[in-house]
Amino acid sequence: MLRSHTCGELRISHVGLKVSLCGWVQKVRDKGKMIWIDLRDRYGVTQLIFEEESTPNEIYKMARECGREFVLQASGVVSERSSKNKNIETGDVEIVVESMQYLNKSKVPPFIIEDKTDGGEELRMKYRYLDLRRIPLQKNLKLRHSLMRETRNYLDKKDFVEIETPVLIKSTPEGARDFIVPSRMNQGEFYALPQSPQTFKQLLMVSGFDKYYQLVKCFRDEDLRADRQPEFTQIDCEISFAERKDILNTFGGLISHLFKSVLNIDIGSIPIMEYDDAIKNYGTDKPDIRFEMKINDVSSITKGTGFNVFDSSEIVLALVAQGCSEYSRKQIDELTDFVCKPQIGAKGLVYIKSNEDGSFKSSVDKFFDQKKLAEIANLSMANKGDLILMLAGEKNSTYNAIAELRLEMGERLNLRDPSIYKPLWVVNFPLLQWDEESKRFHAMHHPFTSPLEDDIDLLDKDPASVRANAYDLVVNGVEIGGGSIRIYKRELQEKMFNALGFSEKEAKEQFGFLLDAFQYGTPPHGGIAFGFDRICALFGGQESIRDFIAFPKNTSGRDVMIDSPSNIDSTQRKELGL
Amino acid sequence: MLRSHTCGELRISHVGLKVSLCGWVQKVRDKGKMIWIDLRDRYGVTQLIFEEESTPNEIYKMARECGREFVLQASGVVSERSSKNKNIETGDVEIVVESMQYLNKSKVPPFIIEDKTDGGEELRMKYRYLDLRRIPLQKNLKLRHSLMRETRNYLDKKDFVEIETPVLIKSTPEGARDFIVPSRMNQGEFYALPQSPQTFKQLLMVSGFDKYYQLVKCFRDEDLRADRQPEFTQIDCEISFAERKDILNTFGGLISHLFKSVLNIDIGSIPIMEYDDAIKNYGTDKPDIRFEMKINDVSSITKGTGFNVFDSSEIVLALVAQGCSEYSRKQIDELTDFVCKPQIGAKGLVYIKSNEDGSFKSSVDKFFDQKKLAEIANLSMANKGDLILMLAGEKNSTYNAIAELRLEMGERLNLRDPSIYKPLWVVNFPLLQWDEESKRFHAMHHPFTSPLEDDIDLLDKDPASVRANAYDLVVNGVEIGGGSIRIYKRELQEKMFNALGFSEKEAKEQFGFLLDAFQYGTPPHGGIAFGFDRICALFGGQESIRDFIAFPKNTSGRDVMIDSPSNIDSTQRKELGL
Repeated sequence: MLRSHTCGELRISHVGLKVSLCGWVQKVRDKGKMIWIDLRDRYGVTQLIFEEESTPNEIYKMARECGREFVLQASGVVSERSSKNKNIETGDVEIVVESMQYLNKSKVPPFIIEDKTDGGEELRMKYRYLDLRRIPLQKNLKLRHSLMRETRNYLDKKDFVEIETPVLIKSTPEGARDFIVPSRMNQGEFYALPQSPQTFKQLLMVSGFDKYYQLVKCFRDEDLRADRQPEFTQIDCEISFAERKDILNTFGGLISHLFKSVLNIDIGSIPIMEYDDAIKNYGTDKPDIRFEMKINDVSSITKGTGFNVFDSSEIVLALVAQGCSEYSRKQIDELTDFVCKPQIGAKGLVYIKSNEDGSFKSSVDKFFDQKKLAEIANLSMANKGDLILMLAGEKNSTYNAIAELRLEMGERLNLRDPSIYKPLWVVNFPLLQWDEESKRFHAMHHPFTSPLEDDIDLLDKDPASVRANAYDLVVNGVEIGGGSIRIYKRELQEKMFNALGFSEKEAKEQFGFLLDAFQYGTPPHGGIAFGFDRICALFGGQESIRDFIAFPKNTSGRDVMIDSPSNIDSTQRKELGL
Repeated sequence: MLRSHTCGELRISHVGLKVSLCGWVQKVRDKGKMIWIDLRDRYGVTQLIFEEESTPNEIYKMARECGREFVLQASGVVSERSSKNKNIETGDVEIVVESMQYLNKSKVPPFIIEDKTDGGEELRMKYRYLDLRRIPLQKNLKLRHSLMRETRNYLDKKDFVEIETPVLIKSTPEGARDFIVPSRMNQGEFYALPQSPQTFKQLLMVSGFDKYYQLVKCFRDEDLRADRQPEFTQIDCEISFAERKDILNTFGGLISHLFKSVLNIDIGSIPIMEYDDAIKNYGTDKPDIRFEMKINDVSSITKGTGFNVFDSSEIVLALVAQGCSEYSRKQIDELTDFVCKPQIGAKGLVYIKSNEDGSFKSSVDKFFDQKKLAEIANLSMANKGDLILMLAGEKNSTYNAIAELRLEMGERLNLRDPSIYKPLWVVNFPLLQWDEESKRFHAMHHPFTSPLEDDIDLLDKDPASVRANAYDLVVNGVEIGGGSIRIYKRELQEKMFNALGFSEKEAKEQFGFLLDAFQYGTPPHGGIAFGFDRICALFGGQESIRDFIAFPKNTSGRDVMIDSPSNIDSTQRKELGL
């Protein structure tokens, strides 16, 4: 190696040792008769020192001419520093440089390579390889690696087999949009990139592999929201002969292990919540349970008071912000503006202040007397000094809106401490969702999810009421994984395809191999897939996944560094028949 | 779990324990008053026993009606077997079944699911999920998992960071043919699937990650030979600040670790051979050094004897098959047929028998007297009792042909013991290869490979003679990995692109981001990529990679199980502008 040690390795105990270091110039301080260079690599920073009197002339000159981000190999003796730097682990020592070479020079980088940079988003994406030199991004990718390693450690110990499934598979119209790959050898035909290895992992269960996992790239050709990537990584898992409780134990255990081994956090046992309760109490299927602030349906009280907004609404919901009865006009206006934002979509906000003196003051005093207000406060379990916030409208959208308001209030009241992690299983989702556009049911998860045993009979009579044997793992309001017990009998799978409006022919064309497989001894099985990029961001304490991916794409699906996608030449097109 | 134990777990110490097992029916033996069922899962086989007298009636009936590959859950008490089966680890015990259910039934499988099957290739590919139930394939995939795990263990311990590079990248005409992916959001433009993460891993070195690896899927749209797959897995690695010897140590160490940890084999230190010596002595850049049998250039002796075949040949090569002087006419004919096969391409075979009595007998006695024959025998270091085999012709093709003959003789003489593994580094390949068709040089490895320091000056004067600072790892005649020290200075990379006939514009369009990166402090670096599928096959003692991949494609690039590639619907085409 061109180095004997890394830039993060030397301590006071190394004093007197002759060493060679390689790294990048972080900073040069030239005091005329003395020059210091901070040399950086991924392990740390070590100070080099050059003295006009004792350093060889040409080396001193090189030190003086060093620019930021030059790559150096420097050799010399480890010495104790006179003024120590307690902020870095190598801060007790410096290298008295005796020989040195520029391994490579550097132009002045287009932005500053430090924890805080002056580079804009677009510029940093174009020079991603320089952005990745910054410590916060280096930390993110190392965290990602630790999470990969500990995921594998945990699952390997539990006798899971990691098996790679193919990337060139078959397009199916169900679900999100596929990326497709034209076949040259079978012209006019196409492969698709997998949105998940779902059918393959089920086939592996048919094969008897019994406990499978894979850290695997998946692909979705969707219009990209701020925090979606066309390619993303899943921890994909499946178990045979397991009941739901076994699956929740095993993969709740995985998440506990990751928290413990990577962040040294004990998350304790993970509570389980019915989907219906999640919606009723939190307005969402991914509640942030770091704080309580449950939602209350107060429709029964608000009906028929002559307040048209409430009277004409399908539902009226209320939540209680503890100790906020003194909120100012301005604060209430801010909240009103918040809920009226297009992405929240409420029409307005009604408040009731539960004053310390036992009286109530509301924005609808005209329609609600003190008694009525007390009833609402009572049903919502508001105490003196609390603020009740109310939204009304169509059921689903009002639940959505008040869920957002709840998070906003949690934020304002500092109830969402990012250093606290509260995982939660949400179970028993609806199996099917009616789609107005296509006038048919869609699978809420995917067509392979089993109904709850008790609900199977409802599949013919009342499909919308059938609950799925499905579960999501939610942490701090973020869904990090989801899965289900699968259908494993051909008859039920056919019934399901039927409920989804597949003709027999379509079902056979797209999933014939799976229906076939079900005839040859398919074991009961179930599994889960975690969004690995999302887990990395969560563990890194950030909201965006972008900086936990080495080379992400922008919101147009473009890699601006390599300039892709791009044109291909006409020979390529011709060979593919495009 | 539906089971308390696996089918591979129960021993004599468990006798008396009440257990539940799940698995597949391997075999039913019905003796009227007694029925035995062998129940199989991926951990082993356990015998179930049912007795007409004591087993509940309905259970006995179910046992009787069990077909092969039915999935059962059976509960009962572990008992000592009266006639033990020493061939399996659970052979001391059986389960006296008290309750049982069919978890799923099975049709009669299309082929027998045992170690040896009666299913043809195509049928087994169509029902891959059943073929994967067979123990040999289960073993292969478990071996693959062990190799993955131990690869990561070794590299993690050495401070490598596993980093995922993108799958949707950019097409470059250099190298093999890319699979491409039409972009919907940027119509008329295309992503490409990576043939390797080469440029990305180099950019990670620019980023300072210093030791990178990844087990990664790569893609090549090539016409498939028997043992090539359009998607394959690499162990991709790169190190900064390393010299070649460090890289050979690190990754030779990886292979040693895999042999030790997975097969418990010590392979010792790995010899290093110059490319030129490999060709001269073995006729190939991937010599099988389990046996010696070096090739000898005897052209200097064979010239001018009037034997036109030799006289008109560019080169005459000989190898010595020890102790084969008694080879019969028939055996010699077989060898002649072998070398004359189109894929070997020789025009004929000349032999010299070095008889025990000191005389020589050859197929060219008319032109070569005993003295001349003795000279050839002497130069080839043949002893009494040996057989000298000679091929003549154009240099490269003759080396190729005699290399094949050498392997064939090694096979015939049992010198290629599959339980012996002899790794070898082959180094200093030619940097460039002249391509007659395109009338330009191609990079023998890729355009980022550095020339040997000593040869850089020859790049202008005599490009064909420049040696690459490249290395391949060869085991038993199979290349399992290859890599190089990379170019890391912009000027040299430009020079290289120039030697490859890239215009400045082409170089910039395709690799501008890399040339740019070289200006911002790129460290010296080098790396390697191993063919992971190939390593799995090698460790599994097989030649074909197919059965070490869960869901491989056939030689037309087709997955016959899921029937892919396939048509896509017109909406999809329209959205992509195809």
